[in-house]
Amino acid sequence: MDIINYYKWRYATKKFNPDKKIPISDIELIKESIVLAPTSYGLQLFKVIIIENQLRKEALRKLSYNQTQVSDASHLFIFCNSTKVFEKDIDLYIENKSISQEVPIEENKGYGDFLKKTLLNKSSEEISEWTKNQLYIALTHLMTACASLKIDSCPIEGFDTSKYNEFLDINKKSLSAGVVAAIGYRSESDNSQNNKKVRKSAKDIFQVD
Amino acid sequence: MDIINYYKWRYATKKFNPDKKIPISDIELIKESIVLAPTSYGLQLFKVIIIENQLRKEALRKLSYNQTQVSDASHLFIFCNSTKVFEKDIDLYIENKSISQEVPIEENKGYGDFLKKTLLNKSSEEISEWTKNQLYIALTHLMTACASLKIDSCPIEGFDTSKYNEFLDINKKSLSAGVVAAIGYRSESDNSQNNKKVRKSAKDIFQVD
Repeated sequence: MDIINYYKWRYATKKFNPDKKIPISDIELIKESIVLAPTSYGLQLFKVIIIENQLRKEALRKLSYNQTQVSDASHLFIFCNSTKVFEKDIDLYIENKSISQEVPIEENKGYGDFLKKTLLNKSSEEISEWTKNQLYIALTHLMTACASLKIDSCPIEGFDTSKYNEFLDINKKSLSAGVVAAIGYRSESDNSQNNKKVRKSAKDIFQVD
Repeated sequence: MDIINYYKWRYATKKFNPDKKIPISDIELIKESIVLAPTSYGLQLFKVIIIENQLRKEALRKLSYNQTQVSDASHLFIFCNSTKVFEKDIDLYIENKSISQEVPIEENKGYGDFLKKTLLNKSSEEISEWTKNQLYIALTHLMTACASLKIDSCPIEGFDTSKYNEFLDINKKSLSAGVVAAIGYRSESDNSQNNKKVRKSAKDIFQVD
């Protein structure tokens, strides 16, 4: 089963080769895998900021406990979740759904009203927690797509969220940096590539009820 | 690229064929995909409760806004995150890491102390938010593994968490039901299988910076 092999091949790369860049055609496939990630109600309440510029990567490393993956990776994908749902987010989704599925927009109006009633009055904390969960689906699509392309990745939670948001100037867009993926190619000297994966046994994870 | 095809094939199944059961060999592959899901620091602070029993599925449907996927699916995978980190969670990880990677446990002691210092004093809210994020990585591994096996799935967030926890009797284990996957085979009469996927265009998701 190819999928299991991708999951086995992937590891959290500790040291990237800073000279090896991901070709644009592979970046496009990775982006497609993120676009296809499922989200709650299909709303896709997130943005991904892609950073390739070396100076900007260096600046972000300083806001990420100086982890060298941040500056040595070929690309940084910063997954940012919405901190608020706006009426226009739902209107846009309903419009997009109506066009994609070729049904009159009136037929989807009731569903749009339901979404508005459900989401517009939630607090920023509730929305953020919920949209941040969903970032991890998109992150996982990226990691698996990368593995299938023999591209290395390292998911990163260790960064200063406030400073990232300030650096990226995204507060005003009601977005917050939720999780980061550094992607590129492992350095030959990354010893962690030789480490055996550490995992619990299935009996310690699953309970059949 | 096979991965993109799996992502395209997958859809949130609205109606399962209740008579079609997933063979055990496929369940084992799905479980392996979940075991391989990466987690923060590798700690795997989650459990998955697998429900096949029809009466228990019916009972859970009532705690899930009566969504028929919950009772019609072949299996329910209930992803439960830890709400607290215990010293023994870290000790077990360090022990497992030392054995898997064949290094003396003393060499990993410093790392274990770091993890304890970092995690043991966090509030239950902080831990839950963090461990719940990670459930979505495992959930995504399941969805992709299923798609590669032509097994349908439906991720479900719409359920009463407190009542699930009570029904599953997991509060006392410092676990909470975070997200559910209903998996099985689509019903021929599930009209949603014919719907075109609704997705934003890449330019509305990505910002190259």
